[in-house]
Amino acid sequence: MGQTGIRKSPSRNREESRARLLRTAGELMAERGTIEISLSEIAQRSGLNAALVKYYFGNKQGLMFALVSDVLGMALEQMRGLVGMDLDPVDKLKLHIKAIINIYFRYPYINRLIHVMLEDPIYGQQVAATVSKPIADTQRELLEGAIASGRFKPIDPMLFYFIVLGACDQLFFGQHILRVAFGIDGIDDDLRRRYTATLLDIVLHGLLIDAPQA
Amino acid sequence: MGQTGIRKSPSRNREESRARLLRTAGELMAERGTIEISLSEIAQRSGLNAALVKYYFGNKQGLMFALVSDVLGMALEQMRGLVGMDLDPVDKLKLHIKAIINIYFRYPYINRLIHVMLEDPIYGQQVAATVSKPIADTQRELLEGAIASGRFKPIDPMLFYFIVLGACDQLFFGQHILRVAFGIDGIDDDLRRRYTATLLDIVLHGLLIDAPQA
Repeated sequence: MGQTGIRKSPSRNREESRARLLRTAGELMAERGTIEISLSEIAQRSGLNAALVKYYFGNKQGLMFALVSDVLGMALEQMRGLVGMDLDPVDKLKLHIKAIINIYFRYPYINRLIHVMLEDPIYGQQVAATVSKPIADTQRELLEGAIASGRFKPIDPMLFYFIVLGACDQLFFGQHILRVAFGIDGIDDDLRRRYTATLLDIVLHGLLIDAPQA
Repeated sequence: MGQTGIRKSPSRNREESRARLLRTAGELMAERGTIEISLSEIAQRSGLNAALVKYYFGNKQGLMFALVSDVLGMALEQMRGLVGMDLDPVDKLKLHIKAIINIYFRYPYINRLIHVMLEDPIYGQQVAATVSKPIADTQRELLEGAIASGRFKPIDPMLFYFIVLGACDQLFFGQHILRVAFGIDGIDDDLRRRYTATLLDIVLHGLLIDAPQA
């Protein structure tokens, strides 16, 4: 499309180069199973100048933050979209939790990137403000809907956030644990589905068969 | 006691020096709110030679691994002790989950240390083998007891492990999120108690008031 003779504006070109660098970084991370890739590898693979990486992202941390924002940006918008949909409020919360697990599954490097970012004092605050807070806000509205419908017990949305996000995160974070303690080499689609179903079942129904009266 | 004139054996001295270095490292991490402390700071504060740190632990990673093993070792033994106790099986699982949260709360640096270790290819496997696997084994036995008693629905212990450990871990891992997304500065005893109660309530009873028939 860029070759049809219509000159693209500089800002359009700029946007495309930036997007291509991010896409390439994500591909390399996914292929290699590590987020330890060099800026020059990204430049080489993308066919773009290494100086552009520095220009757009400053340094590797900047690139990693941009990648986190890029991957999660669209997911966050879809999550937001759930709030206004004409669906059963409990189903909405289920879809929300499924969506979080799916993101971790689809982008195998995102768990590690989020962890590196959250361990950094500066980027940790940025990720918390641009990723965690929007997720928490969406989740609070979804919870309020389910509680207002009379089907959910009241729960502090903040505590719900850490319980659910922690459960979604830990499976993908604990790949050494998965292998060494449970003898499982990776997270395939079957495990993803079983984990999602079990998490939803615990969150919705709990484990007790005969719940004693509180 | 060491000053009474009785000569301690070299191995006894060795053990004490090692323990003192670990205790000092933990104190420094707790005071400073970071695990970024130098070997020479540990040596200086403990009054022991910096060379001893290298001698006992090799390097900083080695010291961090020893600290994780040290702090969690006693907790793991207590957890094991629960298995054989003459208590209601559901109460045992509750105590087990409370104990995990209490460790994170009591040793504010342990969450960060475990994360650094689990992100390392070599130490990640060691932590998985010496910490995660014993926790998982204990948890499986506790779960089997609760299921055998007829009070718990059957659940895959591995999935339970990641859901529960993730939930326990995330609150302490997400301190940027706690501050930026929820405006809370730190985890005090009240928050610890509310989190524990809410997690236990979700795991045991779930959120649905009117559980639809599966």
